Amino acid sequence: MSDTPDSAVRMYIDTHRAAFLEDLAAWLRIPSVSAQPEHDGDVRASAEWLSAKLKETGFPVAEVWETPGAPAVFAEWPSDDPDAPTVLVYGHHDVQPAALEDGWHTDPFDPVIRDGRMYGRGAADDKGQVFFHTLGVRAHLAATGRSTPAVHLKLLIEGEEESGSPNFRALAEQHAARLAADAVIVSDTGMWDETTPTVCTGMRGLAECELQLYGPGQDIHSGSFGGAVPNPATAVARLVAALHDADGRVTVPGFYDGVAELTDTERALFAELPFDETTWLRTARSGAASGEAGYSTLERIWARPTAEVNGIGGGYQGAGSKTIIPSSALVKLSFRLVAGQHPDHIEQCVRTWAEAQIPPGIRHRITFSPATRPCLTPLDHPALQAVTRAMGRAFGKKILFTREGGSGPAADLQDVLGAPVLFLGISVPSDGWHAPDEKVELDLLLKGVETAAHLWGELAAALR
Amino acid sequence: MSDTPDSAVRMYIDTHRAAFLEDLAAWLRIPSVSAQPEHDGDVRASAEWLSAKLKETGFPVAEVWETPGAPAVFAEWPSDDPDAPTVLVYGHHDVQPAALEDGWHTDPFDPVIRDGRMYGRGAADDKGQVFFHTLGVRAHLAATGRSTPAVHLKLLIEGEEESGSPNFRALAEQHAARLAADAVIVSDTGMWDETTPTVCTGMRGLAECELQLYGPGQDIHSGSFGGAVPNPATAVARLVAALHDADGRVTVPGFYDGVAELTDTERALFAELPFDETTWLRTARSGAASGEAGYSTLERIWARPTAEVNGIGGGYQGAGSKTIIPSSALVKLSFRLVAGQHPDHIEQCVRTWAEAQIPPGIRHRITFSPATRPCLTPLDHPALQAVTRAMGRAFGKKILFTREGGSGPAADLQDVLGAPVLFLGISVPSDGWHAPDEKVELDLLLKGVETAAHLWGELAAALR
Repeated sequence: MSDTPDSAVRMYIDTHRAAFLEDLAAWLRIPSVSAQPEHDGDVRASAEWLSAKLKETGFPVAEVWETPGAPAVFAEWPSDDPDAPTVLVYGHHDVQPAALEDGWHTDPFDPVIRDGRMYGRGAADDKGQVFFHTLGVRAHLAATGRSTPAVHLKLLIEGEEESGSPNFRALAEQHAARLAADAVIVSDTGMWDETTPTVCTGMRGLAECELQLYGPGQDIHSGSFGGAVPNPATAVARLVAALHDADGRVTVPGFYDGVAELTDTERALFAELPFDETTWLRTARSGAASGEAGYSTLERIWARPTAEVNGIGGGYQGAGSKTIIPSSALVKLSFRLVAGQHPDHIEQCVRTWAEAQIPPGIRHRITFSPATRPCLTPLDHPALQAVTRAMGRAFGKKILFTREGGSGPAADLQDVLGAPVLFLGISVPSDGWHAPDEKVELDLLLKGVETAAHLWGELAAALR
Repeated sequence: MSDTPDSAVRMYIDTHRAAFLEDLAAWLRIPSVSAQPEHDGDVRASAEWLSAKLKETGFPVAEVWETPGAPAVFAEWPSDDPDAPTVLVYGHHDVQPAALEDGWHTDPFDPVIRDGRMYGRGAADDKGQVFFHTLGVRAHLAATGRSTPAVHLKLLIEGEEESGSPNFRALAEQHAARLAADAVIVSDTGMWDETTPTVCTGMRGLAECELQLYGPGQDIHSGSFGGAVPNPATAVARLVAALHDADGRVTVPGFYDGVAELTDTERALFAELPFDETTWLRTARSGAASGEAGYSTLERIWARPTAEVNGIGGGYQGAGSKTIIPSSALVKLSFRLVAGQHPDHIEQCVRTWAEAQIPPGIRHRITFSPATRPCLTPLDHPALQAVTRAMGRAFGKKILFTREGGSGPAADLQDVLGAPVLFLGISVPSDGWHAPDEKVELDLLLKGVETAAHLWGELAAALR
């Protein structure tokens, strides 16, 4: 066995792998669903569990930070090198709603290992990817013989990411001094696939709203009144249908204001990836690709803004039939945003557009959730090269570049801390984020540990 | 006190009014919801209760008739006059779904009398209007001194009307000989309002379907996949939006084939009614009237076919947000039909139209419920004049003519028995059919009793 740092890291990880997975499973058993008030206590328990685990890992500081909503966890492990750069790791400990009846094969909150994968809500999004930093920093110390990390290491693991991070920006502003960093590492994204390690360079933003339409003061008989009064379910459908034109472009006036169009270089980088639409459709479990005309599937997901219906409802949806005109209907819409778009502008555009669509006799209410801004990492930043090198050492392969279609509050950290945001994620598209049977590939999870173990040395050198 | 038949009828009703209302309340306590399988036993209990009550009323024959679905009740009371015509009364003993949380002020299945009204599911639709025939026939006998009715009286009270009467036509065909009649009286409609007694001359038909659309094999992350795969909630919305054109006409090709257009006479008859749109909108609890261009509100409801959304659903409808592309969506559509339209043709037209709307990558399933045909009573039929006279004696007013926007299986009886269909109903638009706080006005309910008491003599004279 070689005694290079890389093999020493691997040996350390092999030795501690079983305990690491047991600990992760224990964390996944806490159903920290931030969107459902009945799980408020679980989100808190998750924060307390993580804080205790980080202290056990060796972080001299590990605290639960209160917010007006769910608590976050902050931890800090200063380097004994006073000139070391400071790096802040971002992740989240809350998870999406999940229930066995949604189509899970096993209880989403009782994780199991099957075929080299751990199944459970949060396995990939995001507990697994937060947790690899615990074993990562221990392996870094063991392999380098250091007693403290090569960088001043900070972690901020929030508890409301799956609810749109409503209090995150305020939290970051409140604690800006303690969070100050030379770079932010976001561990809440993925890579291309099981065999193609990649570094993500940007995320889309997210604006979400619920639109309620109100028609008759109560459900009324569709025989007695049908054909003669406006139906809110019809109105909500017309509104959704009017969201896109025949080319799949969003029709909301002003929606595309400021959108950063793809450069030829960026399109070429995307084209380097081994994209196979058939495989991708299988992952999406979709029968066809469709979207904005003039863009490839990857461009649609990574670099184009969207409007999607997350939920629609109104009237009778149970067994049999009920001949009513429903009194109300709703639609939950989400808008993915790209660099150049600002959520406040999007909200104003959507409100103005929606109000103009509502027919006489229908009242409405639009509620926007707190938004997430888009972000892009400059391709020429030295920290991006450091992340790429750390990942290359762990995977032993050329690292390619992607973006992420999903959204996270990374842009807020970029704004508040004035630091560049880098992405380190090992999740793959088949992991089933937000879906039944969410899982993480154990091999990749351990490569994440390994990358994290190399990252602090690489960043210390790159940012010094 | 006068001893005319009319005052004798009134006196009899006054004497028996309290017991009559208590009995009706007992029947309303049986939650005979035919659309919900968990209430199958209650629908049966309702049939048995009614059968026993009809025997107690004096019907020599009262039977529960089985169907492949919910049971019906048949009763018969032959006249001692062998030359008397035969009249069949139609109604239904099943009710719409109802739950306190839908907005009822009191338990829908624990009726209460408040301000001269009885509140409870089925009070007007249709138990109240079936039940007035029990006291009606007793008052007829008491006032005329007869021991049997002036007509051979039959009742057929079905148990699946609120589920589209799937087995009703077959039941009528199976028992055609025992159901044979010279006229059918349908007591499942209403009159103009509390102060304007009217006779209905026609009902719309009804075709209903559920359209399920299937997209991704499971809910998928709207960040990872949004903008690049078809969304079934968007597809269902586009389909609903495409159902009508800008003039409010149904766009389904062939939908208007054969529609009997209104004559000038019919439009003039409608115009005689004291229609006030503001009042009507208050009853509908709607903020505006809207519908097919070129027709008045009454024409839209009574004489024009419609397409309405009774329910729409897909994706996440709970609290907070869930950033998914839903795996499926559904819409429940109902089509009201007018004379000249056939449900089989409508089903074929809707299927062909819907299939042409579905985008690539979305699978679908359309399920049609058994349909109800439209019907119209000839304005010059002597039986219609008999009904009008009976109602005039009870109400002491000129009787006007309406139609009914709702639907019932009357057309099947017309087809199978070859008998004209007349309508006798005392419900009013404010009764809240299919809605929370359904009620019946006690004064009108007792006028219904009184009309029923006069009707058998009038019909015996008219049809002899």
